[in-house]
Amino acid sequence: MAILLDGKATAEKIRKRLAEETKKLPEKPGLAAILVGSNPASKIYVDIKEKTCKEVGIYSERHNLPENTDGKELIALIEGLNAKSSIHGILLQLPLPGHINTQTALDIISPAKDVDGFTSRSVAKLAAGNEDNVPCTPKGIIRLLEEYKIPIASRHAVVVGRSMIVGKPTAAMLLNRNATVTICHSKTPDLGNYTRQADILIVAAGKPKLVTAEMVKQGAAVVDVGINKVDGGIAGDVDFESCKGKAGWISPVPGGVGPMTVAMLLENTLNCYKGIEG
Amino acid sequence: MAILLDGKATAEKIRKRLAEETKKLPEKPGLAAILVGSNPASKIYVDIKEKTCKEVGIYSERHNLPENTDGKELIALIEGLNAKSSIHGILLQLPLPGHINTQTALDIISPAKDVDGFTSRSVAKLAAGNEDNVPCTPKGIIRLLEEYKIPIASRHAVVVGRSMIVGKPTAAMLLNRNATVTICHSKTPDLGNYTRQADILIVAAGKPKLVTAEMVKQGAAVVDVGINKVDGGIAGDVDFESCKGKAGWISPVPGGVGPMTVAMLLENTLNCYKGIEG
Repeated sequence: MAILLDGKATAEKIRKRLAEETKKLPEKPGLAAILVGSNPASKIYVDIKEKTCKEVGIYSERHNLPENTDGKELIALIEGLNAKSSIHGILLQLPLPGHINTQTALDIISPAKDVDGFTSRSVAKLAAGNEDNVPCTPKGIIRLLEEYKIPIASRHAVVVGRSMIVGKPTAAMLLNRNATVTICHSKTPDLGNYTRQADILIVAAGKPKLVTAEMVKQGAAVVDVGINKVDGGIAGDVDFESCKGKAGWISPVPGGVGPMTVAMLLENTLNCYKGIEG
Repeated sequence: MAILLDGKATAEKIRKRLAEETKKLPEKPGLAAILVGSNPASKIYVDIKEKTCKEVGIYSERHNLPENTDGKELIALIEGLNAKSSIHGILLQLPLPGHINTQTALDIISPAKDVDGFTSRSVAKLAAGNEDNVPCTPKGIIRLLEEYKIPIASRHAVVVGRSMIVGKPTAAMLLNRNATVTICHSKTPDLGNYTRQADILIVAAGKPKLVTAEMVKQGAAVVDVGINKVDGGIAGDVDFESCKGKAGWISPVPGGVGPMTVAMLLENTLNCYKGIEG
């Protein structure tokens, strides 16, 4: 039976450490979350992030802007937050409404306050091996692997999914740790041919139970990034029940990558407070 | 026998087209090359680039700065070239002396004049699928594949090497074209296990004759990016003689990727002149 990659417990441990550290600081680290429009999933994510901030002693403020906000207003808000000394991290919740250029808006965020690692500068830095500002989900995935002492260097890591938020930055982080990395996606024929080779398998495809036991190598570390609404609740991208007998390690959904993502946001905010960004 | 991926002939055809197009323009496109220090290989590259510019009717000017140039002087020069209306492309020859922060210097280059695609903004854009400013060698590799109508989508592409100049941007371009992409490097054990799976094999490792016939899949497209000095001349990273009987397509060294790289620099300069950059 696979060892459970317990993101819930690991994230709790991290939050506890962050809370202890925050308590000793002369002032509270501050996170500003910007939510444009009324995407219900985005609202839920921002709610969770705000609540968790408070738990660990991070000041959090939220800026709700209407759906029809124009790019200039958004940019003016971000510039104001860049200049605000009580704010150390700025989170621009994605997706933005279609009439706003997402990358242009993101790139207004000061590098020193880029807690999400989505600015062009941070994307390029990660590609070059500098992980000062790394997106929260990839960082949470890697932290989970490290927590369980799963070897990465010289292993074959297969990433299913190529989004800018998960797949690509996770591949970059695995490559930075000397894994040989394969990136698969919706246009990959015979996905199992690749996943069966993976010592480390990261699945971020957004397809419920895409990966089944016969697609997993015996003893592999399987990390499930999927959060899919299905009848009767939430399903990951991995068929947990069939895979848990074959994988060496496996992350559950929920309780795997999700809580790690939020914990990494808090850690990134504290790092920005400490001025770790280069 | 493999079909030769004839970069020399393909680049010549591209240069001819560019020369015809340039002739019709109201003013000459202009490229400024900056060379800091006296690295002999860098000097040779810049000489070739300048010579080829002239052949196709692109104005070229060179700025030689001494090895001990400080970052501020370099930045002031780049800012001046950003503002100079006769200059449409700026090439900062790498490597820079160790006391200069390379990415900081590159990031001064105006996005509209980034012919090498090495600014953070261009790196991030490429990762997001926007290829307005793509580095010249990866662009030359892809162009060569396209010229010979080698299918990329849904094929398995294996890239050996993970530099910011060749390996990583080439992997990004292959991914943008819907290949499944594996990135191997010096820490990959049993390299042949991966290269043997490649429908498209890009070798940019800087190791003479690293890839031999038994590491190549029958019928694969093999692109050799290596330029290694060896006794008696130049050798690629691929053992051309042994591989040519097994590959479906193979690029020679010299006369493969090298001339394509220079042709893409000229094309990028013309594109910047035309304001194609986004």
